[in-house]
Amino acid sequence: MANSKYAYVRNFELPDPLLPGTFMLFRLDGHSFHRFSDTHEFTKPNDVRALQLMDHAAKDVMEEYPDIVLAFGESDEYSFLLRKSTALYNRRGSKIVSTLTSLFTSCYVFHWPKYFPDRPLLYPPSFDGRIVLYPTEKHIRDYFAWRQADTHINNLYNTTFWALVQQGGQTTTEAHATLKGTFSKEKHEILYARFGVNYNQLDARYRKGSVLLREEIVPKEEDGVQEHAAPATPAPEEAAEGKAAEEDAVAADRTVADGTENEPVPLPEKAGSTRRANKASAAKKKAKQPQTRIDLLHCDIIKDEFWDTHAGILAE
Amino acid sequence: MANSKYAYVRNFELPDPLLPGTFMLFRLDGHSFHRFSDTHEFTKPNDVRALQLMDHAAKDVMEEYPDIVLAFGESDEYSFLLRKSTALYNRRGSKIVSTLTSLFTSCYVFHWPKYFPDRPLLYPPSFDGRIVLYPTEKHIRDYFAWRQADTHINNLYNTTFWALVQQGGQTTTEAHATLKGTFSKEKHEILYARFGVNYNQLDARYRKGSVLLREEIVPKEEDGVQEHAAPATPAPEEAAEGKAAEEDAVAADRTVADGTENEPVPLPEKAGSTRRANKASAAKKKAKQPQTRIDLLHCDIIKDEFWDTHAGILAE
Amino acid sequence: MANSKYAYVRNFELPDPLLPGTFMLFRLDGHSFHRFSDTHEFTKPNDVRALQLMDHAAKDVMEEYPDIVLAFGESDEYSFLLRKSTALYNRRGSKIVSTLTSLFTSCYVFHWPKYFPDRPLLYPPSFDGRIVLYPTEKHIRDYFAWRQADTHINNLYNTTFWALVQQGGQTTTEAHATLKGTFSKEKHEILYARFGVNYNQLDARYRKGSVLLREEIVPKEEDGVQEHAAPATPAPEEAAEGKAAEEDAVAADRTVADGTENEPVPLPEKAGSTRRANKASAAKKKAKQPQTRIDLLHCDIIKDEFWDTHAGILAE
Amino acid sequence: MANSKYAYVRNFELPDPLLPGTFMLFRLDGHSFHRFSDTHEFTKPNDVRALQLMDHAAKDVMEEYPDIVLAFGESDEYSFLLRKSTALYNRRGSKIVSTLTSLFTSCYVFHWPKYFPDRPLLYPPSFDGRIVLYPTEKHIRDYFAWRQADTHINNLYNTTFWALVQQGGQTTTEAHATLKGTFSKEKHEILYARFGVNYNQLDARYRKGSVLLREEIVPKEEDGVQEHAAPATPAPEEAAEGKAAEEDAVAADRTVADGTENEPVPLPEKAGSTRRANKASAAKKKAKQPQTRIDLLHCDIIKDEFWDTHAGILAE
Repeated sequence: MANSKYAYVRNFELPDPLLPGTFMLFRLDGHSFHRFSDTHEFTKPNDVRALQLMDHAAKDVMEEYPDIVLAFGESDEYSFLLRKSTALYNRRGSKIVSTLTSLFTSCYVFHWPKYFPDRPLLYPPSFDGRIVLYPTEKHIRDYFAWRQADTHINNLYNTTFWALVQQGGQTTTEAHATLKGTFSKEKHEILYARFGVNYNQLDARYRKGSVLLREEIVPKEEDGVQEHAAPATPAPEEAAEGKAAEEDAVAADRTVADGTENEPVPLPEKAGSTRRANKASAAKKKAKQPQTRIDLLHCDIIKDEFWDTHAGILAE
Repeated sequence: MANSKYAYVRNFELPDPLLPGTFMLFRLDGHSFHRFSDTHEFTKPNDVRALQLMDHAAKDVMEEYPDIVLAFGESDEYSFLLRKSTALYNRRGSKIVSTLTSLFTSCYVFHWPKYFPDRPLLYPPSFDGRIVLYPTEKHIRDYFAWRQADTHINNLYNTTFWALVQQGGQTTTEAHATLKGTFSKEKHEILYARFGVNYNQLDARYRKGSVLLREEIVPKEEDGVQEHAAPATPAPEEAAEGKAAEEDAVAADRTVADGTENEPVPLPEKAGSTRRANKASAAKKKAKQPQTRIDLLHCDIIKDEFWDTHAGILAE
Repeated sequence: MANSKYAYVRNFELPDPLLPGTFMLFRLDGHSFHRFSDTHEFTKPNDVRALQLMDHAAKDVMEEYPDIVLAFGESDEYSFLLRKSTALYNRRGSKIVSTLTSLFTSCYVFHWPKYFPDRPLLYPPSFDGRIVLYPTEKHIRDYFAWRQADTHINNLYNTTFWALVQQGGQTTTEAHATLKGTFSKEKHEILYARFGVNYNQLDARYRKGSVLLREEIVPKEEDGVQEHAAPATPAPEEAAEGKAAEEDAVAADRTVADGTENEPVPLPEKAGSTRRANKASAAKKKAKQPQTRIDLLHCDIIKDEFWDTHAGILAE
Repeated sequence: MANSKYAYVRNFELPDPLLPGTFMLFRLDGHSFHRFSDTHEFTKPNDVRALQLMDHAAKDVMEEYPDIVLAFGESDEYSFLLRKSTALYNRRGSKIVSTLTSLFTSCYVFHWPKYFPDRPLLYPPSFDGRIVLYPTEKHIRDYFAWRQADTHINNLYNTTFWALVQQGGQTTTEAHATLKGTFSKEKHEILYARFGVNYNQLDARYRKGSVLLREEIVPKEEDGVQEHAAPATPAPEEAAEGKAAEEDAVAADRTVADGTENEPVPLPEKAGSTRRANKASAAKKKAKQPQTRIDLLHCDIIKDEFWDTHAGILAE
């Protein structure tokens, strides 16, 4: 009542649907993580606890959102691939980007004590997120190649830099100067010649980053609980889909009408129908959604092998 | 090097600037909070600890972002008003909505134990966020009136509903039936006649929601510490700018690093240069930024009095 | 039938509503008009026939679209102001920008022979259009001031330039060199001293551009036909509004439901409701739309006087 | 000078780039063409002159914009396919949709007298346009199938309807009633049994619509003029680039002119520099652009044959 007179302000909320039929790439980055990692005394050049915490948060997000089929993390960033056909939150941009960023952040803070039992969180960290749309599989492969190549470049640089500082006794300024203008090969040599480090034998986690992969579980004759089984708990879209059911009914009626070819039926306004169609197919799909588990790997994702082996990632 | 060949994927990131010269209203809502409040056994109809935790998180967000001048919270939602002239993150929609949602979420989880010392968090909660633009002061007043009217309607309903259940011995189904079709006046009567409750004397926090107001501190001739003084800690926008500085440094590092790997290819981050330029001017502006403190109130924000008294909220 | 199987492609049409409550400024510019004016031998520095043709086309557009309250033209560009509250085509960006650009173009070609009776159109000219949103009246005044100041700067330059060429016998290269680095005052002097031209006495059309202003006609006791009366013909939005009527009914029902305060009613999805609310108010408004006529002026629109005299332009 | 103080209003123009790597489908529709065709007494059910005029305008548009590789028209609508990789106007949505709609409209009015020599245009017609993005070839095929299926459905209905009215002596209301609920087969029977019309022998133009196809011309050892040769006139993208050059020149002029007026203030046209850069690379690309001609067909575009035969349409 009192409310209805002000409710017009809702009309200023504009729709922000993301183009259907395209891959959604959701990436988040730590906000001011230089300061955060200093304050919490992360080990340089890599803090395995911090990286494991990132992986844990990312895995939680994937368990909550089955339409995420692949993720890749390095340092304080994580990228998530959603299926091309996902109807998550009706593909509304703000809703997806804010919810996924929120859940990741929440998991990060929630799990902190498991990874840093002796170092309490001193202040709440935050992340920013964005969604980028890619039309084809090639784009997706190139996107992940871009991130993993970046991991390599940064890690080689940082590993050499911190070796110079921590073991070589250089100041950070000196170390920067030492590395200025060097090529990859020279950094390998510095590491090997001066510090006895064979870069290629360092932990693959640091060199390759973290790959989280959703794998379908082939059910072994109903043999019970899978260790990594995806949550039987209410899937996140369920609420939305309840609402969709009614709308589908309407859409279906219309199709019948069209079917009779009666007249050049003016098609209904598009915004609406997009939503309905998408919801409908989402509902159907979920019914068939197989059990999956999420595996953590530290492997190459630039070459063909990974994609050939896991062809299901990009398939619909 | 390896990187430059894939970096074209960045071109798919499209700009999403929000119209200048308009008020930004950022609202976040708890995600599946029915389930969350049940699992954590929130008191019905209102759990004061949960509400105080929301207020705390919201206040933290305001302390970090000085362009937020007003906020209003009820239940599991919070609305934040950013100045019309804000240049926060160059007004990029995704960046703002994801960062603010993330920080709020982080604060919520971080402060949980202070408000629920005996009830550990069982799983990580999340929120979704959105930004709505409003051109005029009237819209902003109506927006906040809309939310506070909603608080009233919901709280009166819920208070009566739970009185019927907790004190009146009705099932929830019966209580819904009792209230179906009733007007405001009838609910007041039920509360008073059957449960001796004068609704208007209930805690204003429940009836009016929470108002967080940024107030300028008039310095009393350097007389020392203000009780509510804003944090001497990393000043509000400072973090953001600190980050900008870092990011630039990193970017520089990367360029160097890349450069040495063969072809430097400074990535054409279109938005980037703009961002930095804006940051610079933001920095100048901040120099003049007065000290402020954030007050928590539970007052009427529908009538003129509040807005007349705090005319600075909507002024630039 | 055959059709329904492909109709899913409509789902890729995304909504593009423009923020409500803001002024829409629609500007169009001639496409490759240097070539067009050369080919058609426009008089330099100003071709009055070409300018009158622009004015005619612009006036036709205003007669077709009553929500356009002001327009300003110079050279091969025209700017149109739509009321803040306009619900034209439901504020869909592409629809408005394409339709208005199309109609202007059509009028331009249609009326060409009236203004160039001896010079047939040699090929079809085109225009591009864009819409910019402005939140406040000040922005609108500054926008029009920007365009008129531009008219002044360009026209003074061009007038002097072509005097040097046509009367002073300079080549275009020489004329450019002569004017390089000159101030406004010096151009005035060149015109006066060398060519006896008092710039301020030139036709105001060239110095001030063209202002098209919608004025309300005060009916003189039903005394019959107004010469410039707006078309009684079907207003362009009518079709759209027919469709809106049904939707309004639905929206109205919901309001009733809310009125009873039954329960924290989940408000309907926003995209839809925006449309409905806007349509409803549009329908009401048109019923009351007064008779108007469109006047052509060549006056100053930078100073207050114009806006004080025609306060109705920015009022709702 | 005066100008610089207002030029801030340009900052309200927001970028509207279309996602790279996707097909652009540009469709335009006649605005109020029921009224337009009645006023100009178009023949029912199909007016061959009006359809040929549409084809002519569409062909002109394709000749001006070489990135359009296919078009399909029926009734008062036309759809144009732009290559996935097109960088036309830097993929700015408003610019593309407004310019193409404008040029089509202009051509329509310009060529009118050729097709309706005895029937002068009574008022200027207009069109609206929109762009829809499609990620894959399948979507494009389905889009065109959707339009051609629509052509079939509409034309069969209209042909039968007007036979009932024009030859069968029914009123339009009666004819609607006769056809209500009928299937395709029944309409065929009505036509054949009552009017001796074999629908499948009617002009393919009416049954299949118009297909405009860009074909590469295989040069036969410089053997001179091709019959259908593309215009030696200002090459397709050339106009656009010519304009770019001019615009730059103008911009330069303006800077100079402004500069001399006191404060030059070269307007920071953010998009501008990008645009020029892109233009440059576009220019290079064009150098290699083969000669093409545009063929008009009235063939099936739903089945594979068309797409197999003209595989170049979707290839890059």
